[in-house]
Amino acid sequence: MYDYDRQYAAYLSSFEEALQKHCDALSDKSPTLKKAMVYSVTLGGKRIRPVLMLAAADMLGTPAEEVIPFAVALEFIHTYSLIHDDLPAMDNDDFRRGRPSNHKVFGEAQAILAGDALLNAAYDLCFAQCFKGEKYVRASKYLCEAAGENGMIAGQSADVLWANKTDFTEEELRFIYEYKTGKLIVAPLAIASILADDRGFLELEAFGRSLGRLFQLTDDILDVTGDFGQLGKTVGKDKDEGKLTCVRLYGLEKAQIEADLCADDCLLSLERLDADTAFLKDLVHFVRERKK
Amino acid sequence: MYDYDRQYAAYLSSFEEALQKHCDALSDKSPTLKKAMVYSVTLGGKRIRPVLMLAAADMLGTPAEEVIPFAVALEFIHTYSLIHDDLPAMDNDDFRRGRPSNHKVFGEAQAILAGDALLNAAYDLCFAQCFKGEKYVRASKYLCEAAGENGMIAGQSADVLWANKTDFTEEELRFIYEYKTGKLIVAPLAIASILADDRGFLELEAFGRSLGRLFQLTDDILDVTGDFGQLGKTVGKDKDEGKLTCVRLYGLEKAQIEADLCADDCLLSLERLDADTAFLKDLVHFVRERKK
Repeated sequence: MYDYDRQYAAYLSSFEEALQKHCDALSDKSPTLKKAMVYSVTLGGKRIRPVLMLAAADMLGTPAEEVIPFAVALEFIHTYSLIHDDLPAMDNDDFRRGRPSNHKVFGEAQAILAGDALLNAAYDLCFAQCFKGEKYVRASKYLCEAAGENGMIAGQSADVLWANKTDFTEEELRFIYEYKTGKLIVAPLAIASILADDRGFLELEAFGRSLGRLFQLTDDILDVTGDFGQLGKTVGKDKDEGKLTCVRLYGLEKAQIEADLCADDCLLSLERLDADTAFLKDLVHFVRERKK
Repeated sequence: MYDYDRQYAAYLSSFEEALQKHCDALSDKSPTLKKAMVYSVTLGGKRIRPVLMLAAADMLGTPAEEVIPFAVALEFIHTYSLIHDDLPAMDNDDFRRGRPSNHKVFGEAQAILAGDALLNAAYDLCFAQCFKGEKYVRASKYLCEAAGENGMIAGQSADVLWANKTDFTEEELRFIYEYKTGKLIVAPLAIASILADDRGFLELEAFGRSLGRLFQLTDDILDVTGDFGQLGKTVGKDKDEGKLTCVRLYGLEKAQIEADLCADDCLLSLERLDADTAFLKDLVHFVRERKK
């Protein structure tokens, strides 16, 4: 019988196995560089992005093997963004998932290069898939656009520029949510759909946009109410204090209401899908109600 | 009649035109990010890598339009590597081609992101080409491997790790030459060949390996004898003083001899090509005899 936790664990474990294989296959031409890359990739975490991809593929009837290389590529991209985000010139975080951040272990120079190399390795995986035909190229290009200057990096750039802004607007907050966090939450769902010959594409994109926003809303709320932040962050949030958050904009109470409304949007998008959405629905509830 | 300088200028001008178009087409979702990306891409320079690609394509009878997107992608990758190399945590260079380096203008955080975004944008261009068929995927993957943890970044990583080493070996120097500089000099030649259905592939790869080495040898020599360094560097070489160079390893006189031998290797590889190699031969002489 279906059980959310068991299902999550199953997706996670098949992903972790593939991730480890792809880490092993990385070149050790510079052994230090490889060590730095693998260190951050294997720090663990909930792997929400790859799990979303595997769950969506499962729901649409696409074999896991089809999406796994893209799930690994996506996690490489997510990891590179965290390594660079943690750098002293960016968020200056000494810890990541309870362990010293990459530059604290390998030095700033190797951390910058390890991030670069993970981004590069992600696309190397994608190009290997592109030989298989057009939809694999489309999936790769979707990921690349979601990660780049018209996607996640635009959000990171704005996040840096607008830090310590006192009079920020709802539009600015929405922009950062949509780009910095949202783009890489939509991507795994859209890619799973592309590889399933576009089945449910628009519905999954809409769901992903709401889910990305829900993540960031609950993340901001948990920074105030929770044990510690989520989405890969751990202790020591002082560096984020000047950042644009929904709690700063709305106040805590209204932020909670926004999160509830956003969770409803997620569920509504799922209703429109002609598929078994039980797992994704449970995931929405889990994200809304998580305590850390 | 064929004239080297005029031919170089012709390749350069068709490349610059395409580069400008691709810069204009970059998303300005974060206008600051786009400005930072375009700033470094349009700092100029000899554009040796794209010129090599255009020259090789011309020699092999491949239309320029076929290689231009890859030439732009390659220059984006080269530029991102310079932006990250200039960062305080890496070479700490305040100037690049006589202008303030990216992080001096836009701050370190935006410079890191602009580099990331250029690497990403390079592959976005490649994915767009991948729709055209298998050889475009092969060309893209070749570029990606040349740039990554089994290519340029491995060389950058070693370069950082081995800086200030007093007892370095010839093998270590060769490694840095081959990876940090060589890989992105071989790539344009190999890609031009792949797009010409592999015509002269091995010969062009061999030529590229020697040419990459020649560049780095003459670059190191010019750091000692010339007005100022080349391959994108300008004034203020003090940060590079601890770096592994052929002059430190061999002494100046033997380094000059190595460079002469290497230029001979370049010409020998070209002899093996069944094509009009006049331009590439002249380019070898130019590289060997350049004064800055």
